[in-house]
Amino acid sequence: MISEKMVDLVKNSSVIRAMFEEGQKMAAIYGAENVYDFSLGNPNVAPPAAVAETIKELVNEDSQRLHGYMSNAGFEDVREAICASLNRRFDTHFIAENIIMTVGAAGGLNVIFRALLNPGDEVITFAPYFGEYRSYVRNYDGKLIAIAPDTTTFQPDLTAFEQAITAKTKAVLVNTPNNPTGVVYSEDTIKKMAAILEKKQQEYGTEIYLISDEPYRELVYDGAFVPYLTKYYKNTIVGYSFSKSLSLPGERIGYLVIPGEIDDYKMVQGAANVANRILGYVNAPSMFQLVVAKCIDEKTDVAYYDRNRETLYNGLKDLGFSCIKPEGAFYLFVKSPIADEKEFCEKAKKYHLLIVPGSSFGCAGFVRIAYCVSYETIVNSLPKFKELAEEIGLQ
Amino acid sequence: MISEKMVDLVKNSSVIRAMFEEGQKMAAIYGAENVYDFSLGNPNVAPPAAVAETIKELVNEDSQRLHGYMSNAGFEDVREAICASLNRRFDTHFIAENIIMTVGAAGGLNVIFRALLNPGDEVITFAPYFGEYRSYVRNYDGKLIAIAPDTTTFQPDLTAFEQAITAKTKAVLVNTPNNPTGVVYSEDTIKKMAAILEKKQQEYGTEIYLISDEPYRELVYDGAFVPYLTKYYKNTIVGYSFSKSLSLPGERIGYLVIPGEIDDYKMVQGAANVANRILGYVNAPSMFQLVVAKCIDEKTDVAYYDRNRETLYNGLKDLGFSCIKPEGAFYLFVKSPIADEKEFCEKAKKYHLLIVPGSSFGCAGFVRIAYCVSYETIVNSLPKFKELAEEIGLQ
Repeated sequence: MISEKMVDLVKNSSVIRAMFEEGQKMAAIYGAENVYDFSLGNPNVAPPAAVAETIKELVNEDSQRLHGYMSNAGFEDVREAICASLNRRFDTHFIAENIIMTVGAAGGLNVIFRALLNPGDEVITFAPYFGEYRSYVRNYDGKLIAIAPDTTTFQPDLTAFEQAITAKTKAVLVNTPNNPTGVVYSEDTIKKMAAILEKKQQEYGTEIYLISDEPYRELVYDGAFVPYLTKYYKNTIVGYSFSKSLSLPGERIGYLVIPGEIDDYKMVQGAANVANRILGYVNAPSMFQLVVAKCIDEKTDVAYYDRNRETLYNGLKDLGFSCIKPEGAFYLFVKSPIADEKEFCEKAKKYHLLIVPGSSFGCAGFVRIAYCVSYETIVNSLPKFKELAEEIGLQ
Repeated sequence: MISEKMVDLVKNSSVIRAMFEEGQKMAAIYGAENVYDFSLGNPNVAPPAAVAETIKELVNEDSQRLHGYMSNAGFEDVREAICASLNRRFDTHFIAENIIMTVGAAGGLNVIFRALLNPGDEVITFAPYFGEYRSYVRNYDGKLIAIAPDTTTFQPDLTAFEQAITAKTKAVLVNTPNNPTGVVYSEDTIKKMAAILEKKQQEYGTEIYLISDEPYRELVYDGAFVPYLTKYYKNTIVGYSFSKSLSLPGERIGYLVIPGEIDDYKMVQGAANVANRILGYVNAPSMFQLVVAKCIDEKTDVAYYDRNRETLYNGLKDLGFSCIKPEGAFYLFVKSPIADEKEFCEKAKKYHLLIVPGSSFGCAGFVRIAYCVSYETIVNSLPKFKELAEEIGLQ
């Protein structure tokens, strides 16, 4: 018999992942070009050419450095390269010790929750949110508290946020640019959020860590400004991933930033370091640490995603669908034209359109469409969306 | 403030890792050639040439397959390649579904403990054992029960084992070839262990899973035979890593074998799959999945380790040290010539000899010497061991 906790977690297992597996099966039956798989945030844009070139150079280097163990936090020079890039871009003052290389952002979030959470501790996040957050918090017996969305702007509802903070609030988890809405939290939102956190820390005499999960930081359109959160609130910890910015999601490479000025810095930094080891990651994959350090200022082809965004957004709007225009990431969060969005997703599947119910993100009545696919998929999917719109009488 | 559980885990953090960090600092001060760092199982032998060649070929392939997401369990064809190799070598009958690609063996053990353990469940292992097992079990609120060693043979004490099994015993964790002793559990030991487990399962009406952690399977000397445990006991699960067999410890690549005939197979396999995702691994690093599949039958230079083994074993024996001759892995487990082996390790440090106290492996009075270093290090360390032996009056 498996663990009781797992029984529950298996039951509520990721709808996104199940759909991805289903999409692969459908592609095998109908041909990949006849399946419009918008289920997963798996970048279609190739990594920058520098990635392959760097790998070719690295394989000639000393194999023990390339593939061997290093400190659990990662290579010192890799962490220095990351600091230098962050400090230059965001006018911060991080040193190598503030960086822990992690197995993607998912690894980083698990590490920091493992370091911080006692059973029963509360972690606040804002719906809609990446559904895996539930599991990451539950892994350490914490409780995820989701603030209901303002479905007009999808900016966090700060009044509800303030009311939700209790003496048990250990962390607040934000994700901007946001998956699944593509919304970027404005500087005004961040400032107000920071002020609320300061006030509540004082009120309860606790530390409340703001954890910023930002794999989509570099993926913004129309020059949108994404504030670097450590500059607005002292107790901020950043989780980053190169999955989207360098199109390396399968390689599991990211990092945590634990700034020196957070409360109990030494303990948190030490605990995160140990957590990285004992959770079985041991260290972030060695060669890809070296790859990302050398490619730290390379950029993905944002214009490609932007064309997808414009084409799909305008195409769906013309068909009568309703959706906020995303400023970042590569998702559209579309209002379901029928009340039960799961039913809508099922109907879409008949047209080989794979889209994810909003209830997976704690926000029923909407669906997520991941447009990190080929432009041809976008263009070819629109007639299918038209048929779908006609079936449900949208037009 | 950090999690209470972490406070304890940080305090008991890995002595091996601390020593590795210290060794790197000492190397910076005294020069790497003047520090004899026997602390960490970080292979000195380079990966087979096929690894670099495979990487060079792979970088020209489709980047979305190379670096993108795949099913959480790993690439189907990679898992098939692993099955084919196992089935051919061990006359087993695994299919791809039985394999889950993991972030090293440490990742695999965390996945299977997360899948199986309820709080308070007991996991039996045999001292001396890899100290990280304590944390891996503790992560899921299990209790590691260590059977005291037979320090003559370092084969498991099966009488004590039988007595230690209770209704709460969920798993037995074995590691053969063994870290830190280098002992290979004999077929006779395995057969008796299996018989005890069968009997106790029946007695308690429970399932007791035998988990075989075998990163050292391929590292054996003098033709030693390492039984494949699934063939001796039905409820066996195997954790494997390519860290040692292909000298890729930093890349974090391994797999779990969950045979179809174990009790509650579907649930265990499903839970392990979900655990692999939600613990934040998501999937084993993608490119190195493809690398190990193509290099599955490549072999490391066992002869190099063997020369180290013979030279160090004979050298230390001649100096009056006492040690069982290892049949596998790349460690010597030497009896400490002074009662407190930590004191002995401190004395050794004065000669720039970095060795690990046996208490880190649940076996005080011994020290572990990792001989996965250059032959020159072995040769040059012997005069230092001689000085150490003289200081403590060994000769």
